[in-house]
Amino acid sequence: MESLNPNFKEYVENRIKANKFMPFLGFKITQIEAGEITGELEFKEHHSQQNGYLHGGITSAILDMVEGFAAYSLVRDGDLVFTVEAKISYLNRGMGKKFFAKGWIIKPGKRFHFCEGEIWYENEIGKKIIVAKGSATMAVLAKEDLK
Amino acid sequence: MESLNPNFKEYVENRIKANKFMPFLGFKITQIEAGEITGELEFKEHHSQQNGYLHGGITSAILDMVEGFAAYSLVRDGDLVFTVEAKISYLNRGMGKKFFAKGWIIKPGKRFHFCEGEIWYENEIGKKIIVAKGSATMAVLAKEDLK
Amino acid sequence: MESLNPNFKEYVENRIKANKFMPFLGFKITQIEAGEITGELEFKEHHSQQNGYLHGGITSAILDMVEGFAAYSLVRDGDLVFTVEAKISYLNRGMGKKFFAKGWIIKPGKRFHFCEGEIWYENEIGKKIIVAKGSATMAVLAKEDLK
Amino acid sequence: MESLNPNFKEYVENRIKANKFMPFLGFKITQIEAGEITGELEFKEHHSQQNGYLHGGITSAILDMVEGFAAYSLVRDGDLVFTVEAKISYLNRGMGKKFFAKGWIIKPGKRFHFCEGEIWYENEIGKKIIVAKGSATMAVLAKEDLK
Repeated sequence: MESLNPNFKEYVENRIKANKFMPFLGFKITQIEAGEITGELEFKEHHSQQNGYLHGGITSAILDMVEGFAAYSLVRDGDLVFTVEAKISYLNRGMGKKFFAKGWIIKPGKRFHFCEGEIWYENEIGKKIIVAKGSATMAVLAKEDLK
Repeated sequence: MESLNPNFKEYVENRIKANKFMPFLGFKITQIEAGEITGELEFKEHHSQQNGYLHGGITSAILDMVEGFAAYSLVRDGDLVFTVEAKISYLNRGMGKKFFAKGWIIKPGKRFHFCEGEIWYENEIGKKIIVAKGSATMAVLAKEDLK
Repeated sequence: MESLNPNFKEYVENRIKANKFMPFLGFKITQIEAGEITGELEFKEHHSQQNGYLHGGITSAILDMVEGFAAYSLVRDGDLVFTVEAKISYLNRGMGKKFFAKGWIIKPGKRFHFCEGEIWYENEIGKKIIVAKGSATMAVLAKEDLK
Repeated sequence: MESLNPNFKEYVENRIKANKFMPFLGFKITQIEAGEITGELEFKEHHSQQNGYLHGGITSAILDMVEGFAAYSLVRDGDLVFTVEAKISYLNRGMGKKFFAKGWIIKPGKRFHFCEGEIWYENEIGKKIIVAKGSATMAVLAKEDLK
């Protein structure tokens, strides 16, 4: 996928640094490609819901991050991205020690980027178990319209 | 709305206590009614996304909590509830110092509860500004099936 | 709710006339207010799915119409509206002889209108049974950007 | 994907025959695999919305069909399937003469099947243009519970 920003990695990295909630949560971005963002989370006790599994709210927060940064990787330097709406389907319980997440663009556009995302872990025999699948609409706010 | 559990407040309170992510996030449940849960969050710097507003991931996490506990308030003692899917629409930027959230059941059922939720703040002139609106499907897992 | 078009009723009526699928389906708009559209459908056999109830696809088509025209009722003369995404939750089976639908704007905006919609019937004792609830994002395409 | 019904093709074909709305719409199922259903629609004038493109309501109706029958292809003979909720994202305008649709299961289950679906056409140079992407939750109603 082609980005409108030749320095998109740097731009996404700067947006990540400005994000205070991501380090608080413990989620880390591990790879930045044009239209595709990957990251991971080490599971800690404070990430659990009432039955000991990964909290659904963390799942949706992480999908929002990888999907949103996937959109940021395509826009021009200075343009902003904001989430219009997102849906998440919970396919399997989050029972891993480490979770992986990927967000990608299924249809780029001038005004919107349509995204999808997945969060998964590997079980004891190395099989990928998908915890949740997401789909989101990210709107582009052009720098010219910012003020 | 009628609950199948005469002690639903106690049951929801116990589920809340078992949830580790909620206190980590700083969200507090303030009211438990049958089919309706209310709570609030004092905004801290670690709740912000890259532009200083409430992170969308926190918004969706909080909606998941109030919608999920609204479903828990209706089921029998011992039944479990899990989120099948959720959608969230971001109506306004989260610019408040304190956020309020409510989750409610729009259609109770034996196998599913259909829920909605809202998160809002009051601006400087006391007007309620809705940050996000959510809709979710919560499935009931009967204690007989838990084995 | 305020419209940007003083002649919004006429504008919506013209959009309705241009729509070929609506009369084919048999759905009729009965009321046009700024930000709120109401209509109805007489149930025919060709509207049924495999168990004899109202087909879910008709339900979602009708919600798309009332939500979309609710957005059209707010924009300037000449602006276009298109559906970005829509979600629908099926609350009860569609067992009526006549169905009613309403679409309304929950948050108007310059670039998007966030909408909700409902379809229902009245059972034999006159009680309103909600068949489905929808939420959708409608984008505004300004006439200046059309060519 | 494995079906619980060795005669799943026959079962799906019978469900299709009972569906009155599908022939009225003009949509045809062309392939039935376990967990994956394909079909097509010849575009007629009565399928158009106000700007002459494929009506979004038809798109969502068709996705509901291919996703729902994909779920039917996996359940036991006699079990029923119903749509709990569905989301659709409109990626490109529906400008084709013939549309193709596919629905598939991303996660089968005992109580739910999580599905996705796509509708597309081929443009003048044979390129596949995706009109819409959907995701849906289909619930299984076991024949034992039908009474």
